Amino acid sequence: MNAQAIKALVFDVFGTVVDWRNGVAREAAPLLQRHGLTLDPFEFADAWRREYGPAMNTIRNGQRPFVRLDVLHRENLDNALRALGVDAGAIAAHELDELNLAWHRLDPWPDSIEGLLRMKRRYIIAPLSNGNIRLMIDMAKRAALPWDAILGAELVQMYKPSPDVYTKTAEILGLAPHEVCLVAAHNGDLAAARNCGLATAFVPRPTEHGPGQRTDLEATQPWDWIAADMNDLATQLGCQR
Amino acid sequence: MNAQAIKALVFDVFGTVVDWRNGVAREAAPLLQRHGLTLDPFEFADAWRREYGPAMNTIRNGQRPFVRLDVLHRENLDNALRALGVDAGAIAAHELDELNLAWHRLDPWPDSIEGLLRMKRRYIIAPLSNGNIRLMIDMAKRAALPWDAILGAELVQMYKPSPDVYTKTAEILGLAPHEVCLVAAHNGDLAAARNCGLATAFVPRPTEHGPGQRTDLEATQPWDWIAADMNDLATQLGCQR
Repeated sequence: MNAQAIKALVFDVFGTVVDWRNGVAREAAPLLQRHGLTLDPFEFADAWRREYGPAMNTIRNGQRPFVRLDVLHRENLDNALRALGVDAGAIAAHELDELNLAWHRLDPWPDSIEGLLRMKRRYIIAPLSNGNIRLMIDMAKRAALPWDAILGAELVQMYKPSPDVYTKTAEILGLAPHEVCLVAAHNGDLAAARNCGLATAFVPRPTEHGPGQRTDLEATQPWDWIAADMNDLATQLGCQR
Repeated sequence: MNAQAIKALVFDVFGTVVDWRNGVAREAAPLLQRHGLTLDPFEFADAWRREYGPAMNTIRNGQRPFVRLDVLHRENLDNALRALGVDAGAIAAHELDELNLAWHRLDPWPDSIEGLLRMKRRYIIAPLSNGNIRLMIDMAKRAALPWDAILGAELVQMYKPSPDVYTKTAEILGLAPHEVCLVAAHNGDLAAARNCGLATAFVPRPTEHGPGQRTDLEATQPWDWIAADMNDLATQLGCQR
């Protein structure tokens, strides 16, 4: 694959650009403590994230019209607490609403900003995330993610890995699918993008799910680029330091 | 109006942030010369812009499904040439396609970048333009416009001043209309935004239409803010230098 043929790099965000697990655990810890809950904040983060896929499935399969991720996250928060044996009703709604914004306040992996800044000089860079636009704006402003635009699920009104998300994003960019490259730490996301004709770049994030992670430790297909991190990807794509 | 109540500033772009007339004239001049056309490039720019409103009207009134502005600009280019007595068919399509990108390569007014950078520290800033997403991305990358996101007509699939464009943009931002302020050099755009409950800021651009401009020379309503330029607006909004 020739890097010259690519005009835009679009990025998975949760796990690929930012570290959701440490961020959510950090944001949840004070609330858990305040309410005398002895839950491990990392277990809580994992439980909340476990609701993510199933919640989007109801929209992907047409059971439910599209709602933005902030809405799903808030519902998932109640469900996660319940699954952990916590009575969500005993916690004030405004506290849970505030905790729901934890996803807006995630930190980038150490290489993300520098890599993005390098890639931005040569390519259009944008998130192609299931996160909604306001979530991505808040995250970018706090973390200084230098996006050229906020693309993703909310524009297309559908969640990845539904094909529309990839193909309509290329269309919005006025590009052919092969001129757009998805960068992700998840083989499944890349497989869906490749099926739609997009180019693909894998950046492993072996601690996204904590020390015991067993999935997505390496590329499971010969993706167009396989990089050690965002800086290595920038180098492979010919973007100067 | 209290600047503290505002969370996001959304900007009209053509005329308000960038100078379309000089930019289009500059981009058109070589093509006109190459084809031995004695048209004044500024008259040509004005003729092209005259097709803008009528073309969007067919979409605003439901006669035609939404198409992005790049498509309308390309059709308008043929119409403008025809109106000026030029045979558009005698010019190669690829030359006209290239000229159509003139709108992606407009320069900001001298105060725009500094003002935007100041406002960005305190507010979410985004275009609320009829220009499509790719057009806004290309313009921002070339001119270093520091947008937090690209909002506007293409997201909402409708053109200003239709009310949906303003109200759905506030909704996407997760804000009440009164927490969003439209910044524009056009009283009509501001009136439509105010009707939808948005706050309003007027920045005059008295040479947008050239030396003989007669419209929008001053505020025709008591807008929430009336500023001399983007820097003055930043100052009025309490954004430090």
